[in-house]
Amino acid sequence: MSIVLAIDGMGGDHAPEMIIEGMAKAVMRFPHIRFELFGDEERISPLLGKHESLVAVTHFHPTTEVITSDAKPTAAIRGFKDSSLRRAILSVREGCASGVVSAGNTGAYMALSRLVLGTLPGIDRPAIGGLMPTFNGPKVMLDMGANVEVSAENLIEFAIMGVAFARVVLGIQDPSVGLLNIGTEELKGNPTIKLAHQALKESAFIPNFKGFIEGDSISQGIVDVTVADGFAGNICLKTAEGTGKLMGHFLREGIKRSLLSKLGVLLAKPAFDYLRDKIDPRHYNGAPFLGLQGVAVKSHGGTDGEGFLQAISVALHMIEKNINASISQEILAFSSSNSTEERTKVKFCAL
Amino acid sequence: MSIVLAIDGMGGDHAPEMIIEGMAKAVMRFPHIRFELFGDEERISPLLGKHESLVAVTHFHPTTEVITSDAKPTAAIRGFKDSSLRRAILSVREGCASGVVSAGNTGAYMALSRLVLGTLPGIDRPAIGGLMPTFNGPKVMLDMGANVEVSAENLIEFAIMGVAFARVVLGIQDPSVGLLNIGTEELKGNPTIKLAHQALKESAFIPNFKGFIEGDSISQGIVDVTVADGFAGNICLKTAEGTGKLMGHFLREGIKRSLLSKLGVLLAKPAFDYLRDKIDPRHYNGAPFLGLQGVAVKSHGGTDGEGFLQAISVALHMIEKNINASISQEILAFSSSNSTEERTKVKFCAL
Repeated sequence: MSIVLAIDGMGGDHAPEMIIEGMAKAVMRFPHIRFELFGDEERISPLLGKHESLVAVTHFHPTTEVITSDAKPTAAIRGFKDSSLRRAILSVREGCASGVVSAGNTGAYMALSRLVLGTLPGIDRPAIGGLMPTFNGPKVMLDMGANVEVSAENLIEFAIMGVAFARVVLGIQDPSVGLLNIGTEELKGNPTIKLAHQALKESAFIPNFKGFIEGDSISQGIVDVTVADGFAGNICLKTAEGTGKLMGHFLREGIKRSLLSKLGVLLAKPAFDYLRDKIDPRHYNGAPFLGLQGVAVKSHGGTDGEGFLQAISVALHMIEKNINASISQEILAFSSSNSTEERTKVKFCAL
Repeated sequence: MSIVLAIDGMGGDHAPEMIIEGMAKAVMRFPHIRFELFGDEERISPLLGKHESLVAVTHFHPTTEVITSDAKPTAAIRGFKDSSLRRAILSVREGCASGVVSAGNTGAYMALSRLVLGTLPGIDRPAIGGLMPTFNGPKVMLDMGANVEVSAENLIEFAIMGVAFARVVLGIQDPSVGLLNIGTEELKGNPTIKLAHQALKESAFIPNFKGFIEGDSISQGIVDVTVADGFAGNICLKTAEGTGKLMGHFLREGIKRSLLSKLGVLLAKPAFDYLRDKIDPRHYNGAPFLGLQGVAVKSHGGTDGEGFLQAISVALHMIEKNINASISQEILAFSSSNSTEERTKVKFCAL
């Protein structure tokens, strides 16, 4: 059975070229994929024409507007009615596609997805998930920046959605979960995170809950899912990116300082290639908006065709494994596992 | 004129050995230094005896208790009356020393310092400062974890203290300041950080205020002082540590995979040594507790004599440049630069 994905052909720094390249790669890898593609006809048609097998599975819709990277979410909601991004999301609501992928403006993408698709029943706030490189392979983290302020219940929802996503992309049956904090002792942290910790510990709803973890534990990969509010999660993600670049910079500076080092690095090229591959952001591309009524995946704006292919494959996995059915089911189970009294108590304690 | 430092001889993983080693190095580098040393006589005396020049400038005080690394701050305050840490801090209050250095339990150290020394007038919350490696050399960041929840006024105080610390340790006359956020646009972030941003921008009190910066900008070194609440700051610091270790791990794994790589790495040793030196945590050791009536510096618990020397030298710089006089003066200037009406307005907006 074929799966239809809606693609925003105009989002990202190197669109539409890298988008078409990624789609062409996807057709080779996933023969059952079909596309609804939205974008500027003049720019996309010549590119599309180069890939016969892609043309065969793509339904192209010309659009007249593009949401720029500096557009505010509110502006994206009010205007840009014929933008490639909005039209792509709409096609999911209309049932023409099972999911959408865009490398465009994150804020606008999230705002439009919430507005057009709506959230899943029982979900208060959708979150942005993502994969991080660790000692033990890629691991899931959320929220990457959608929610700067959260309640304890939001964090619990994130944990449930993170577990569902880890099952889909990592293939782990019973993913372990940690709450990001500034210490592992129960007395550490702010009231919200302490409350979420207590609820997750007492409910045993997430059987593999590991309690608090610290910032350096993420890269150690001691849990499959790291849960944080969007403020800490985003800072964590970007700090890791920045530190990676800094180390590369120091190493290049060091190499420049001696001829022997330059020669050595040539010989050790396989080792550096190995490192580069292990932290290659393209392998970790494809951040899902979790908690929506539909599958929406955000690609990094600066990626290439290979990276966009990865984002497509994340969306495909989420659709094939029916991630939203799992999330709905577990959110329902969570709600009913706590009596109204208990839930009220939790809410009361949070005040 | 000599400067007297109080030293907790028992704090840290490798105490008292690394403490005495660091002190001995300090005597060589800073001939005007004197020590009040606190700790277990049986363990410290034999070590001290090996360094004649150190013995000559050290006043040793035997103590009977040690605050362990897992002791809670409340327990440290109530008990441990004859601990090396408490006695060292007390000696500052009594005027026997101008500052204190310890590699012990951070929470206990901060709690005891606040209790024994008190905060500077006008300072609501002391913060933990620190140095981070960047493309442009070491830069200042605070708070590293003392305050998980802050007000906008706290963040402004942190900015003022960070500027004073950057002047002392980086020797920059007019340090630039950035507020850590999940985007650089003014609409991003939580209400607290937006309010602090607005106040710093409008007051022009910190002339070199650069607005919001993101997690990856810290390692780029685009500002001299990064201001964050203790939750984000601590997660940022530990994520950077973890990412550094992860990259080293991947590189070592890559090297193991081929003989040629091993040979190459031998040739490129100077380049790796350069990298290692650039990110050597010992160079960044010595986290000041800013905002106290007295100088208190925290050394990393796992450091060695070289790292402890660095922490001593941070304390020495803070004393010599009279950092607390600068902080008091600027906090006073800040308070009077805003009329009561304006300050009330700021407070009101924060609600």
